[in-house]
Amino acid sequence: MQELAEITESVREDLKAVETSLKSLGEVDSRDLSELLDYSLSGGGKRIRPTIALLSAKFHDYDIERMMPLVTAVELMHLATLVHDDTIDDSSVRWGRPTVNSIWGIEQAVLLGDYLFALAGRLVTATGSIRVIRLLSETLMVISSGEITQARSAFDLDQSLDDYFRRVTSKTASLFTLASEAGAVLSRAPEESVQDLRDYGHNLGIAFQVVDDILDFVGTEKEMGKPVGSDLAQGTLTLPAMLLLEDYPKDNPVRLAFRDKGEREHVDRTIEMIRDSTIIDRCFEVAADYRERACRCLDRFPDDASRQALVGLTEFVVERRR
Amino acid sequence: MQELAEITESVREDLKAVETSLKSLGEVDSRDLSELLDYSLSGGGKRIRPTIALLSAKFHDYDIERMMPLVTAVELMHLATLVHDDTIDDSSVRWGRPTVNSIWGIEQAVLLGDYLFALAGRLVTATGSIRVIRLLSETLMVISSGEITQARSAFDLDQSLDDYFRRVTSKTASLFTLASEAGAVLSRAPEESVQDLRDYGHNLGIAFQVVDDILDFVGTEKEMGKPVGSDLAQGTLTLPAMLLLEDYPKDNPVRLAFRDKGEREHVDRTIEMIRDSTIIDRCFEVAADYRERACRCLDRFPDDASRQALVGLTEFVVERRR
Repeated sequence: MQELAEITESVREDLKAVETSLKSLGEVDSRDLSELLDYSLSGGGKRIRPTIALLSAKFHDYDIERMMPLVTAVELMHLATLVHDDTIDDSSVRWGRPTVNSIWGIEQAVLLGDYLFALAGRLVTATGSIRVIRLLSETLMVISSGEITQARSAFDLDQSLDDYFRRVTSKTASLFTLASEAGAVLSRAPEESVQDLRDYGHNLGIAFQVVDDILDFVGTEKEMGKPVGSDLAQGTLTLPAMLLLEDYPKDNPVRLAFRDKGEREHVDRTIEMIRDSTIIDRCFEVAADYRERACRCLDRFPDDASRQALVGLTEFVVERRR
Repeated sequence: MQELAEITESVREDLKAVETSLKSLGEVDSRDLSELLDYSLSGGGKRIRPTIALLSAKFHDYDIERMMPLVTAVELMHLATLVHDDTIDDSSVRWGRPTVNSIWGIEQAVLLGDYLFALAGRLVTATGSIRVIRLLSETLMVISSGEITQARSAFDLDQSLDDYFRRVTSKTASLFTLASEAGAVLSRAPEESVQDLRDYGHNLGIAFQVVDDILDFVGTEKEMGKPVGSDLAQGTLTLPAMLLLEDYPKDNPVRLAFRDKGEREHVDRTIEMIRDSTIIDRCFEVAADYRERACRCLDRFPDDASRQALVGLTEFVVERRR
């Protein structure tokens, strides 16, 4: 597998500028806020969404000045949702370090998330595109609405694969879609190309989340930067657990884990059974299927460095181990 | 005192349309979300911010089609901040009924607030004005940044009157300013008028919050729809308590209330002492001063029904008892 840095070679300088732009957002008058921003903006995410946005603009009129506010805003949106997610889930570790809520408490975390959403909203106005501005808000509507449903279905076994893919679409793929669609729009791509890139983002996002859900069972805490099996412990039913329920409809540790609200013993037993089965392979097949769909959305674009990078990104997403 | 309905007579029909518009936002596919929206959009606020926005547009090119998305968005922003505030403060009652967090829990309340912010952001794009869209996001930045500072200064006695007015400006006046400034911008008012109306909103907002802080000491739970003395109980230092600290720098129940993290006995003693002193009158004088400043911002406008309504609003804000 190629390293992410290799894949994104063609936008390396612009990604550096994104880091600088993110860092500069911590320079605010309020010392309280500045402390929170410095911490949350330096978490060390992979910046996949900014990469997608930049690459999606490469086929047409690529103007980095116009792109920068969007790309920064997309990453801020992502970070803001993580801050609220961790708060809601009472998670203490993310990316191998304490979460905002675990250091500063729920109040500060909720307010920081609000600030980050607002900052993303203000930044994106600098693109001058009402369509892109609207996309950003619509994406947050989709994400929060999806999470409301997810939170209500916590520890609920009565969920179909359709429910799962709907959830994955709203909570993860929507931000990938925002990145690719808005990137394309800002590059003044013709509508057909916008839709192709939009679909690319959608399918890549689903592949990404399926792999995330796999890694929650097969990764190590060190690789993942958070405890293994945390989805199950929090009552979120993901693809591997659903397949285990299908394979063993009766005696099943997932049932027990949900009955006992994430009791560790049952979570550990679930992890063990899933690792010993063919489930992981089957889940990777699902991810590979979405990966292929993402690649097919690029068929109409010239086979240049940008397209190869977008293809490389699909590979990275499916083969990554953290 | 005039009734609010009398004051706002000239925009009555448009305010009705705002109610209809707010109500229609609950019609979404997700039943979970719809339930939360129906509840939070029917709380029965006074819709003061929509009123300010509508009246501020009346002096120039008043186009209700263009105004409606703004006016609805401003109220949504207000409701969203209340939902997050109540969650952070763990408040159980607002407007005489259970809060969203007390019925559905913290998770749902945080996510509902996020959805409402996003919905406000999407609605306001329909105004087509990048300036107005940016104002909305900037307002949320100011509010959340201010609240971060407020949360950190909870139960802290070392706060100046400047700190107080800064806090009031960011948490309350900013939304009033948004309403009046954005209303003026959408009416295509000349920049001088926009600034006058902006300042009107700012001063009215401060007067409003000072009165709110007074009512927290002199109101009744029935009138207020929430417990008396709740600011003090939550560690928020407001004007009446600050003046009591000034008057009695040594033995003072505010000190004890903060030392004991809002212990009811000391809160009750503070309420009693404030009610028995001249403090309430002095606070009303402060509110009246800001009220006058607000009125002076209207000097350059024709003395028509709209201006009279805006003046009437300042009267209502200072003389209201809930």
